[in-house]
Amino acid sequence: MTTTTGHSTPRTHTGPGGAGPVGYSLPLSPTGASSMLTPPPWHFSGEVVMVEYRVDPDAARRFLPPGLTPGADPGAAAAVFATWQWCSADGAELADPGRCQFGEFLILLSCEFEGRPMARCPYAWVDQAVPMMRGWVQGMPKQFGTIHQSRPVTVGRAGSRLEPGGRFDGALSVHGRRAVEASVTLERSGDRAPALHDVPLAHTLTFPEWVPSADGPRARLVASEVSDVEFSRIWSGSGNLSFLDGGLGDDFASLVPLEVGDGHVFAYGETLHGGRLLTD
Amino acid sequence: MTTTTGHSTPRTHTGPGGAGPVGYSLPLSPTGASSMLTPPPWHFSGEVVMVEYRVDPDAARRFLPPGLTPGADPGAAAAVFATWQWCSADGAELADPGRCQFGEFLILLSCEFEGRPMARCPYAWVDQAVPMMRGWVQGMPKQFGTIHQSRPVTVGRAGSRLEPGGRFDGALSVHGRRAVEASVTLERSGDRAPALHDVPLAHTLTFPEWVPSADGPRARLVASEVSDVEFSRIWSGSGNLSFLDGGLGDDFASLVPLEVGDGHVFAYGETLHGGRLLTD
Amino acid sequence: MTTTTGHSTPRTHTGPGGAGPVGYSLPLSPTGASSMLTPPPWHFSGEVVMVEYRVDPDAARRFLPPGLTPGADPGAAAAVFATWQWCSADGAELADPGRCQFGEFLILLSCEFEGRPMARCPYAWVDQAVPMMRGWVQGMPKQFGTIHQSRPVTVGRAGSRLEPGGRFDGALSVHGRRAVEASVTLERSGDRAPALHDVPLAHTLTFPEWVPSADGPRARLVASEVSDVEFSRIWSGSGNLSFLDGGLGDDFASLVPLEVGDGHVFAYGETLHGGRLLTD
Amino acid sequence: MTTTTGHSTPRTHTGPGGAGPVGYSLPLSPTGASSMLTPPPWHFSGEVVMVEYRVDPDAARRFLPPGLTPGADPGAAAAVFATWQWCSADGAELADPGRCQFGEFLILLSCEFEGRPMARCPYAWVDQAVPMMRGWVQGMPKQFGTIHQSRPVTVGRAGSRLEPGGRFDGALSVHGRRAVEASVTLERSGDRAPALHDVPLAHTLTFPEWVPSADGPRARLVASEVSDVEFSRIWSGSGNLSFLDGGLGDDFASLVPLEVGDGHVFAYGETLHGGRLLTD
Repeated sequence: MTTTTGHSTPRTHTGPGGAGPVGYSLPLSPTGASSMLTPPPWHFSGEVVMVEYRVDPDAARRFLPPGLTPGADPGAAAAVFATWQWCSADGAELADPGRCQFGEFLILLSCEFEGRPMARCPYAWVDQAVPMMRGWVQGMPKQFGTIHQSRPVTVGRAGSRLEPGGRFDGALSVHGRRAVEASVTLERSGDRAPALHDVPLAHTLTFPEWVPSADGPRARLVASEVSDVEFSRIWSGSGNLSFLDGGLGDDFASLVPLEVGDGHVFAYGETLHGGRLLTD
Repeated sequence: MTTTTGHSTPRTHTGPGGAGPVGYSLPLSPTGASSMLTPPPWHFSGEVVMVEYRVDPDAARRFLPPGLTPGADPGAAAAVFATWQWCSADGAELADPGRCQFGEFLILLSCEFEGRPMARCPYAWVDQAVPMMRGWVQGMPKQFGTIHQSRPVTVGRAGSRLEPGGRFDGALSVHGRRAVEASVTLERSGDRAPALHDVPLAHTLTFPEWVPSADGPRARLVASEVSDVEFSRIWSGSGNLSFLDGGLGDDFASLVPLEVGDGHVFAYGETLHGGRLLTD
Repeated sequence: MTTTTGHSTPRTHTGPGGAGPVGYSLPLSPTGASSMLTPPPWHFSGEVVMVEYRVDPDAARRFLPPGLTPGADPGAAAAVFATWQWCSADGAELADPGRCQFGEFLILLSCEFEGRPMARCPYAWVDQAVPMMRGWVQGMPKQFGTIHQSRPVTVGRAGSRLEPGGRFDGALSVHGRRAVEASVTLERSGDRAPALHDVPLAHTLTFPEWVPSADGPRARLVASEVSDVEFSRIWSGSGNLSFLDGGLGDDFASLVPLEVGDGHVFAYGETLHGGRLLTD
Repeated sequence: MTTTTGHSTPRTHTGPGGAGPVGYSLPLSPTGASSMLTPPPWHFSGEVVMVEYRVDPDAARRFLPPGLTPGADPGAAAAVFATWQWCSADGAELADPGRCQFGEFLILLSCEFEGRPMARCPYAWVDQAVPMMRGWVQGMPKQFGTIHQSRPVTVGRAGSRLEPGGRFDGALSVHGRRAVEASVTLERSGDRAPALHDVPLAHTLTFPEWVPSADGPRARLVASEVSDVEFSRIWSGSGNLSFLDGGLGDDFASLVPLEVGDGHVFAYGETLHGGRLLTD
């Protein structure tokens, strides 16, 4: 979620042996046009409702793979709701609003790689299949959930404006159980991006092995390569955050909020180009 | 969709004989708190993508009940996509964004009642159950569909800004079939509300009769009583509108666009209070 | 849900004044073919997972309208999950499986009308819009929910067979919160229909008043007229039933299970013809 | 979809360097319990509605990767709708019917590997995220769609029984557009499994490369290893199959039915253990 340079070039997958059906992803087909995913770059424009909070630093550490360390502020975390539009390089998906929109909820943990501040995303949920699968291509652990988030209004009385006193809510349900609720009540605006939303994400690139290999499955630490980062004005105020008994298990529950800090409401844009290996 | 005065007072339904479970609507319960619907007033704040078009005036006339006449511009029609937030008088629903948001698509036909310009809504679809049922309380023929609509962006490259050249799309699917697609390409902005979105709606209040009555089911012509109408600046430009083979039948297809006019993108707010009888 | 005779004849609604667009229900249209609902009779074939339980008799009594009394077994209740197919008289909907299928969860309370055993349904949820609206036509308080229910299997290892030891589950979520969970573990089969599924349903026919009337909204007690009732063999065993904190409020929570009895798994068919007035 | 032996052993993925969070799949977590996917074996029990048809043999050949040949009957194809329950080795998912059920539609093309009859699945859609992702683990190109399929009934009039004259329908919609419709009208039953549902599936194991490698992305031909295959009695009759303009593109459209053959309705169970490399 921050600017880096040196974009990788998209490549096209081919069938075994270099002939036959092709595609950036499954499904492979004669021309490659059936690929469920388009190759990067992918543009994103989103509305974010985010709450900063603190977790047990030991719990957070257990989510960090070798290579990542807790860093200067080991218990810092954030819960992030976002309503996105996305498109490929040619923007084609924008003409089909049912295809280019999705909701997302994710947790971010502060960490460092070789002394550089980064964020680790231990959990993420989206409400569309293409962004879910694209998450796994990046090493981002996106699952499927139901995500709702307040929309700022400019007219009428059914919603809050982006102004002091405005309240913005987010809610995540998974398998028909409410798992997370958050809200932000605005107090002020500024131009400083929230720390955890302004550092690179360090993901673990791994995928289940269907055919057993001698070494077992591979897992590599990667950073996302992002450009054209753009923030709107940042509205901030007091945050609320609750983890409910959503059936997500003890590992998720170990990241429960111990203390809740500020919340932020803002718009955010970026272009995602590919991954850069941190460790092999 | 326009201001009127003389708001009716909400009333509470009770069980047969004036005792037992109560409620504004089903389900009736001891305190009335289980009612699926809250009584009006209901506040609405929405984002609208609207395309003006022309239908066969004879086809439109066949959708007008006695009391309504085609008026000065008999073939004028509009296709309207809207993304709404709503809440009751106390605003309670706003804290649960999954409950207070819905999408809507509707058709409007120009008409007159006793010489006064009004709009008739022959078809409407929403994607949530509460607004659907609330539609029938008003005589508005809301059915269930899948509705998607572009969201204007302010940062990033995944969407259009509200500025000349910006493009906004809407799409309706019903029972897994694409039925309507529309788009607007912005050219200019102004402060003149689109005519068909600025006149009262005349609905037919009727509901199937479960226990046969001597006279058969009743149908009354009503106008919606609305206050606190608010428009944002109106962005306008060229419109596109297609009816696809969505399995909606010949009656719907009789309202196919013969000519497509301007499109508009704007925000709209209103408060809906109740109905006023036009004819009994 | 039991056989009665003397079917009412379906009628067609018309627009105000007897001309203009027509239909059994909204939307009215030139030929009536746009009506969201078809007129009865409606055929139903379903798979049922049902758990008998006991509620606080005083709580149950507060859900009974004048005319209904608690009867011989005042705290008897049932929680019923069903997976339905339905069709109109001509069976047309069956060719579109996305249209003719729905899931349902409902609560039944034992009661009597003039000494005759009946059942009262204080709450019901379905996952499709047409059955929801059709519920209100009958006075059945159907709301929108997410309903899942085990399917018996005949081959493979992913599910239970209809045989001793087989386990069948049901779950209701409303607005992304899990509200009810039930299961039945089969022990035996027989041909005796569960009592609460074999008596007529007494509903309150009422609908919010949009235009205030002198008397206020009307509410009438009706019984559903059903024919061609058919039960499969009834599989029975021990039941489990939990109400979770699903945000459904205190009135719903007053019907929490105090004791859980037997559960039943069976197939059920009926034809629904209309309503018969019990009290005006 | 047929029996093979020599099951692979499930393995657990670990984070980079062999320490840190673990899991069979993303999300990795301290105990591995957050993994979205459970390791195989996976049990499946399904109800199948299947129509045999013929495609242009040249079109089919363009979907075959090196190593697969068209075989003895080059234009043979099938369109398969299935309603599944699934569970892991311990059956835990069966207690949550919203989690263990999904619908699927897939296309099968006849082919051969080293003279042995197999089937190639160029396209598949499911309506749940876990089976979609699990498809990609196997090299099966599952995308997200809306799938509906008739359920046989045993009582009542809302559906067909498994008997001569019974009709069973399936429908696929993708992104709100109807793409495929099929139906089978039963004439007879037997115990011979349909050929294309009784041969192993040959998939291409490949996944987009996020960090560019020297060789480009790998793609390997694998066969699924399946045991405990079980068929119910096979009901067969005349089939119908239509590809509609579902926006799925020219590659999909090249597999349009040229001739439609028999249809089959049956139950099917299997256990899926892993993959076996056909070519590297």
